[in-house]
Amino acid sequence: MTSSNVLQTRSEHLCHGGRVGFYSHASAALGLDARFAVFVPPGATAARPAPVVHVLAGLTCTEETFFIKAHALAEAARLGVALVATDTSPRGAHVPGEEDSWDFGIGAGFYLDATQEPWSQHYRMGSYIAQELPALTEQLFPLDGTRRGIMGHSMGGHGALVHALRAPDFWKSVSAFAPIVHPSVVPWGEKAFTGYLGPDRQTWRAQDAVCLLEDGYRHPTDILIDQGEADQFLERELKPDLLEEAAQKAGQALRIRRHAGYDHSYWFVQSFAADHIRHHAAVLGGV
Amino acid sequence: MTSSNVLQTRSEHLCHGGRVGFYSHASAALGLDARFAVFVPPGATAARPAPVVHVLAGLTCTEETFFIKAHALAEAARLGVALVATDTSPRGAHVPGEEDSWDFGIGAGFYLDATQEPWSQHYRMGSYIAQELPALTEQLFPLDGTRRGIMGHSMGGHGALVHALRAPDFWKSVSAFAPIVHPSVVPWGEKAFTGYLGPDRQTWRAQDAVCLLEDGYRHPTDILIDQGEADQFLERELKPDLLEEAAQKAGQALRIRRHAGYDHSYWFVQSFAADHIRHHAAVLGGV
Repeated sequence: MTSSNVLQTRSEHLCHGGRVGFYSHASAALGLDARFAVFVPPGATAARPAPVVHVLAGLTCTEETFFIKAHALAEAARLGVALVATDTSPRGAHVPGEEDSWDFGIGAGFYLDATQEPWSQHYRMGSYIAQELPALTEQLFPLDGTRRGIMGHSMGGHGALVHALRAPDFWKSVSAFAPIVHPSVVPWGEKAFTGYLGPDRQTWRAQDAVCLLEDGYRHPTDILIDQGEADQFLERELKPDLLEEAAQKAGQALRIRRHAGYDHSYWFVQSFAADHIRHHAAVLGGV
Repeated sequence: MTSSNVLQTRSEHLCHGGRVGFYSHASAALGLDARFAVFVPPGATAARPAPVVHVLAGLTCTEETFFIKAHALAEAARLGVALVATDTSPRGAHVPGEEDSWDFGIGAGFYLDATQEPWSQHYRMGSYIAQELPALTEQLFPLDGTRRGIMGHSMGGHGALVHALRAPDFWKSVSAFAPIVHPSVVPWGEKAFTGYLGPDRQTWRAQDAVCLLEDGYRHPTDILIDQGEADQFLERELKPDLLEEAAQKAGQALRIRRHAGYDHSYWFVQSFAADHIRHHAAVLGGV
């Protein structure tokens, strides 16, 4: 078992020759206890650390969801890629109303730092993802912080795109499943950004992948996106065409693969997850 | 969506080019509504049906567990094998005490027909697995009833071994993860068999893989079993050595693979699930 005075190990399991573990710690960024999961592939050691891909889940999910449902660990083990999974919001902030909606508050942190009271004290998943969680996991596990990628599903696809575009030297590879690409103009995003960031839409642009491309942010690699064409949220919330248009104008390399018949679920995600691991390994290498 | 006057479709999803679906129906064997899941691989049609492997989950699980956590669908799609997953007990029988234990009653049907009141009216998973569910699914889905296998985990491994040994012409291939091999002599089995079958241990023998081998039952194929050596239930409940000894005496082909460091969880199951799909496909073929 991994032991540390900053980490509680909830469980660890051998899996595909590597080790999957579930942990909690006192997060400085969130001011609360936080949970995360790590998969260390076979062969990774402190002397020979693995490249690492952070995975961000969608609305209502937890740090367990991607590891259990995305079926990515076999390919990550085969290629020698580590995975780190975060929770989707702070837990235990006790902000009034945080449990009232499935698309705002608990389970819906949108991977940003809230600026509006009463959310701004604890709803700081932006800093948690961008700084605290990579630093903590790279200190305690055999992960190579010079080879770090990010991917996500739905709200987590939004998070992956935004964080990679804003810090392309930090996140060297990026991909997404059915991401929210332009939250400023869709109901999920407008609700969350109004609550977390306030009514001034100018402040939303730094949390919106399409706006970041419009504002000059680029990622040096090809961005891979898979999107099901039978996704129940495609037209209302996801709108991948808007990202494709913005990328074309910006000269950003982007490959959106549209899949007839696939929906928004992890049955879709698992069908293409191995491709995403290979996409990241092509940039980051393996153990 | 699959529609039928005997079936309610709860959800269907495209997955790995095939279709995974969750259904409910009024079960005659159980006298209650029952849920099950089906994965139909790509290319299966009424004219060209797929071989099918029934998967039986362990204590506390449902018809969803194996499909979500075992990560077997990719290989099943690749090899053209269908999967059918059952629930682990009747639901809604309202037998007094059925919710009191996690290892008896709800979630713990042991894939047998209870003979003791008050369990005998509804706790009839034996008949459900052996007759009703194969007949129903082979009527409504493109499954080839002449090429049918069975596998399971823990309590479901017990169910797979017992059903295959008792009906080797019906279940043409068999495998298990961490099965209960000799329930008559371990706490889980003694509790369940006493409750469902009564105190006469002679009546237990037909529900016990080791006893069946002692009593002359055989399966014509090699039985594949994977067992983690760090399984927390290995010594108390599982005891694979007892099956190995009985198989040697009986001349039953059996291959137990022992894996250092692996525990009882689906993190173990997913690590070897593709091997089991290949084991069944080697006997049953593909679409």
